[in-house]
Amino acid sequence: MAVTISDVARAAGVSKGAVSYALNGQAGVSEETRRRILTAAKDLGWSPSLRAKSLSSSKAYALGLVVARNPRLLGTDPFFPSFIAGIETTLADRGYSLVLTVAAKQGAEEASYRRLVHEGRVDGVILSDMRTDDARIALLLELGLPAVTLNRPTLASPFPAVCMDDTEGISSAVQHLVDLGHTRIAHVGGSQHYIHGLSRRLAWEATLERNGLPTDMFVEADFGAQQGTAATAQLLERDQRPTAIVYANDIMATAGQSYLQQQGLRIPTDISITGYDNTEFAQYLNPALTSIGSDPLLWGSTAAQVLLNQLEGKHDGEDVILPAPQLIVRGSTAEPSA
Amino acid sequence: MAVTISDVARAAGVSKGAVSYALNGQAGVSEETRRRILTAAKDLGWSPSLRAKSLSSSKAYALGLVVARNPRLLGTDPFFPSFIAGIETTLADRGYSLVLTVAAKQGAEEASYRRLVHEGRVDGVILSDMRTDDARIALLLELGLPAVTLNRPTLASPFPAVCMDDTEGISSAVQHLVDLGHTRIAHVGGSQHYIHGLSRRLAWEATLERNGLPTDMFVEADFGAQQGTAATAQLLERDQRPTAIVYANDIMATAGQSYLQQQGLRIPTDISITGYDNTEFAQYLNPALTSIGSDPLLWGSTAAQVLLNQLEGKHDGEDVILPAPQLIVRGSTAEPSA
Repeated sequence: MAVTISDVARAAGVSKGAVSYALNGQAGVSEETRRRILTAAKDLGWSPSLRAKSLSSSKAYALGLVVARNPRLLGTDPFFPSFIAGIETTLADRGYSLVLTVAAKQGAEEASYRRLVHEGRVDGVILSDMRTDDARIALLLELGLPAVTLNRPTLASPFPAVCMDDTEGISSAVQHLVDLGHTRIAHVGGSQHYIHGLSRRLAWEATLERNGLPTDMFVEADFGAQQGTAATAQLLERDQRPTAIVYANDIMATAGQSYLQQQGLRIPTDISITGYDNTEFAQYLNPALTSIGSDPLLWGSTAAQVLLNQLEGKHDGEDVILPAPQLIVRGSTAEPSA
Repeated sequence: MAVTISDVARAAGVSKGAVSYALNGQAGVSEETRRRILTAAKDLGWSPSLRAKSLSSSKAYALGLVVARNPRLLGTDPFFPSFIAGIETTLADRGYSLVLTVAAKQGAEEASYRRLVHEGRVDGVILSDMRTDDARIALLLELGLPAVTLNRPTLASPFPAVCMDDTEGISSAVQHLVDLGHTRIAHVGGSQHYIHGLSRRLAWEATLERNGLPTDMFVEADFGAQQGTAATAQLLERDQRPTAIVYANDIMATAGQSYLQQQGLRIPTDISITGYDNTEFAQYLNPALTSIGSDPLLWGSTAAQVLLNQLEGKHDGEDVILPAPQLIVRGSTAEPSA
């Protein structure tokens, strides 16, 4: 039995108009009311897919992924290839395609979603790179486009989320270094307007605070090799340089390791480092990189699975919580030298 | 008034599911039923919304890439991410999308191309991973689907090709090792049914022959890390182990380097190695990897450009020859130890 907007209105104690405003991301309801309505919609299992289904019986047999970054990133950040590979493992089994759009220019992202909908190119989209203030939720509600998000957005969202908590892994990495005896532990973080950039920094900070250690050695970078190197250089210039650096991903750690070695520092004897993502090459570095074994492939395949189930009315509406990535200790971490 | 799948189902006396199977070229209905459904659909003037749309504007504003490999490869072989990034740099500028299909199963590749055409999802396709006996040329001709190929196929092909010769780079790598004084130079090659797997081996062989050196140290692998490691292990077991190994790509070289170091061999003092592709992490290895600077990003962006020009009648029909990848010498190659 399909949940209607009337059901949502009744549950939230508001008018049907207010529900419509809220679900369509339009002005006209307060933020608090919007949140209450979205919560009610989620609790009742209302989903845009049902609405989309009633509008059209023809399927596109494709899911969409719109990446609002420099297209070159797809070739350099190892997260995306594995994540896309994961999506494809699910789609290949079902005979679906992935419509991949890179929307790097100002305004191109919104235009891309609108076009995917208006031209009926996809049955739903996967939202990655969730931001702290993410306008895509309201946009997709307005467009009636089914979606799944990677992690639960900070803004209220009626879409199912597939979550992989990065807090635990970063905390383990910091605690591992503390247990080895490090007291000056830096963090080279990713862009802080991405939820995963922010949450990794907060986890680093919280773990240091729990151990009564200083949290002043943070440098923001962009998850890329060049900025990872520059951030490492900045940390080395400090009066008291760190004895360990926790990087927000492997590619920054890899570039950092190479830079540190060029500066004559031995890893791990002189300085310990950790990465994140456990990319394939991490194990082949010299020394092999201590990293956190996130699984972008599993994330991609599960997200696609949840979205397809949602489209077929087979998803229960609950968020899917994937196992938290675990620390993998290799040769790049050791006790600090006296 | 739009004709729906239900109308077609009623006219053909079958279920909506059967119509869906038939119209999407999936298994699940007999050939006779499929024919009856297609006839009914045609008589009623049924067309999917997307096809209707793209027929009216006669453009899908999308290019297709069908990858007939294990989907995981997209996350592990660094060629594809960079190549796809290159395609997207061109498409993002023009507001096009990429329809990416992984067709790993037997028969899935042909079905994928047929579906892309029947549903009007793409304006043309980019053919990568050209094979020595490539059935896709004939298939695309039959389907009337415009295409561009990476390198000129060995079979006659009417499609424009964007070529990047890998012979010169491999020859330079082998000659570089010969000039350093190596005489036992092995090759860990890629799958020999791919043109680029074969041509790299032939270039290695020809350069050794020109120098009067033996060509008996060849091991075939699959361009992946695991087989790269296994091939390296095989070479070490020889009575006379090689003093240098030319790998067909960076990921096999990286895995090989790590394995060699684990066996107690110093690189480059005890053994020299070279890669191919100059992937981003190659420069960060310890020692940094001597590699061949192919440019998958340029290849992807140019291939997309040529195909779009072709679609607009602006391509002159000539093959585009990209600069041959050059050798980049780094720390992983040196004179052999006595």
